[in-house]
Amino acid sequence: MSTDTTVLDGLDFPAPALAVADDVADLLFREARSVHHFTDEEVTDQEIAAVYDLVKWGPTAINIVPLRLLLVRTPEARARLAAHMGEGNRERVLAAPLSIVVAADTRFHTHIPVLMPPYAAMAESLEDNEPTREQMARTNATLQAGYLLVGLRAAGLSVGPMSGMDAAGIDAEFFTENGWKALMVFNVGRTEGSTTPHPRGERLTYQQAALTV
Amino acid sequence: MSTDTTVLDGLDFPAPALAVADDVADLLFREARSVHHFTDEEVTDQEIAAVYDLVKWGPTAINIVPLRLLLVRTPEARARLAAHMGEGNRERVLAAPLSIVVAADTRFHTHIPVLMPPYAAMAESLEDNEPTREQMARTNATLQAGYLLVGLRAAGLSVGPMSGMDAAGIDAEFFTENGWKALMVFNVGRTEGSTTPHPRGERLTYQQAALTV
Repeated sequence: MSTDTTVLDGLDFPAPALAVADDVADLLFREARSVHHFTDEEVTDQEIAAVYDLVKWGPTAINIVPLRLLLVRTPEARARLAAHMGEGNRERVLAAPLSIVVAADTRFHTHIPVLMPPYAAMAESLEDNEPTREQMARTNATLQAGYLLVGLRAAGLSVGPMSGMDAAGIDAEFFTENGWKALMVFNVGRTEGSTTPHPRGERLTYQQAALTV
Repeated sequence: MSTDTTVLDGLDFPAPALAVADDVADLLFREARSVHHFTDEEVTDQEIAAVYDLVKWGPTAINIVPLRLLLVRTPEARARLAAHMGEGNRERVLAAPLSIVVAADTRFHTHIPVLMPPYAAMAESLEDNEPTREQMARTNATLQAGYLLVGLRAAGLSVGPMSGMDAAGIDAEFFTENGWKALMVFNVGRTEGSTTPHPRGERLTYQQAALTV
């Protein structure tokens, strides 16, 4: 790690430099914005596969990796999804190059014998405990959604995350057979040359968000 | 973005290159491992502040940013935390250079007038709706925990995430006054020269985890 230091906003001591270059920190966090207006350029399945192949390595509890992705592409599928989005998000889904329903697989336990062999027996006990499975799936897939957002940015894509939606309606529309649960929807595309629509929101300072004991 | 392609494991088409260099992808995801044995080198508050200052920019629903961090340092505080960890995690907390209780602030709504002025009125309606606040806080802080894990790695730190713990016990031990809820605990330190203790777990392929409609 570099020994350079930088004075952080609202911080009364200099902070050490990161292990990644400034342009990477900018791409992933500092300059990245939630975006709802994209260029028309397509986002391919191959691009999303490359992102998945990166973020699949992020840790989850006993490696259950319950994150699942529904890529919504066809006009018919977009219309089905848009019908369950909150009013302000419908046009965004219809206009984005790609919308991804970020979901949690409540039947993740069937993969435990492969993903975490020492816990193989847990797959059987979880079969009859749907509430625990759903809670584990939602928590860990939400954690993975954080990895996914960073991974999409690492691929040079911009993301517009949305949670204003009828999640149960989306589940009934798309997931009755596989047991997935919709967590949020990411619109994905590119923004070259576009400008962001409004000033950046404030954030809490480190002193507001952290305590040491 | 580069036009280079790479053939992904289990993928029947070449995937486009990322917008970050291979060493960054390795540091953040591909080579990073969950770690429970660290060098003795200290992890300072300043280092964690620099990570916070990076990941605070990650998006949350209406910018509520409910992630809170309790840095556990003193021997007394470590013992208090260890008492609420699952058996296999107690020694890990006592031995790590730093343990961070990753928490969700159920009283995040008091900051809405600053964080998202157009929604200032929501702060009042949420005051009387603790269940909704807790659900919003847990979901969005878990998403931010994903950003935090990536940010710690971007600072050159290694992380051992743990959820085997009595979360309600941790809340009663540390958070009775501020309304924070413990989500997980991250042990944080460095691993230069250390080797990981076991082979890497499998992951699901893109074809297993994603559908296109």
